[in-house]
Amino acid sequence: MIELDPIAVVRNSRKTVEDDQWGEVVSTIELLPPLTAEALTGIESFSHLEVIYYFDRVQTAKIETGARHPRNNPDWPLVGILAQRGKNRPNQIGVTICKLLEHNGSSITVKGLDAVDGTPILDIKPVMKEFLPKEDIRQPDWVGELMQNYW
Amino acid sequence: MIELDPIAVVRNSRKTVEDDQWGEVVSTIELLPPLTAEALTGIESFSHLEVIYYFDRVQTAKIETGARHPRNNPDWPLVGILAQRGKNRPNQIGVTICKLLEHNGSSITVKGLDAVDGTPILDIKPVMKEFLPKEDIRQPDWVGELMQNYW
Repeated sequence: MIELDPIAVVRNSRKTVEDDQWGEVVSTIELLPPLTAEALTGIESFSHLEVIYYFDRVQTAKIETGARHPRNNPDWPLVGILAQRGKNRPNQIGVTICKLLEHNGSSITVKGLDAVDGTPILDIKPVMKEFLPKEDIRQPDWVGELMQNYW
Repeated sequence: MIELDPIAVVRNSRKTVEDDQWGEVVSTIELLPPLTAEALTGIESFSHLEVIYYFDRVQTAKIETGARHPRNNPDWPLVGILAQRGKNRPNQIGVTICKLLEHNGSSITVKGLDAVDGTPILDIKPVMKEFLPKEDIRQPDWVGELMQNYW
């Protein structure tokens, strides 16, 4: 068992859990004690951040540990929960790259974070070119269909 | 407080914690109970995976919550722990994109995972083009220097 404490919290206009239209959402991420502004020193020299957060609104009983159709849509194949990015997953962790708009002391403002208001943040990392895929990405067709209105 | 259970474990030839030369490392990731092969169904239709893991070898006393020079190298600027990707960070979470080489039942083989043998895995997600940055990445010069021998 691994115990984690949220390091920050999301503040934005999205109060309910919905699947799509996240691209234009602007969120403020506020550090929580014991972290202070010092932990964000120099973060504005990066254009993008990777935000690791906890899907705290997911009901434990709904967590999928096997396979399911993405979004429970039977038009898409039955795939393992680790072969999709849905929120009802073991450990309820979300990871999203978003654009850094502003850094102000112990808070940052980002665009395109797909997390609702109040979501606990577990970690924030700067996006470095060297950590992006070095080869072309191959993915199945259902992904493009599912992502059509996501951003 | 958030409690997580590892979903899988890393097996590879890297027994000691060292900073560089991770690019050619081949690792097997073996699911742990209660997860079974079902959770990986269809994962081979993706070329790359994002692996979220726990830096379990980090000593709690060495976790940085403020700012430090990356790798404690004074040639690089003093930056916040959330503006770098070092392992001695709050919540000890690592996130790395690696190449999927093989899927075999409840295990997968990947290339370029920067985690030592025995590292607990918290989540595995498929890399989707739509989750990569939409704009060019901007980053400070010290990153290129630090990453020179990383892969």
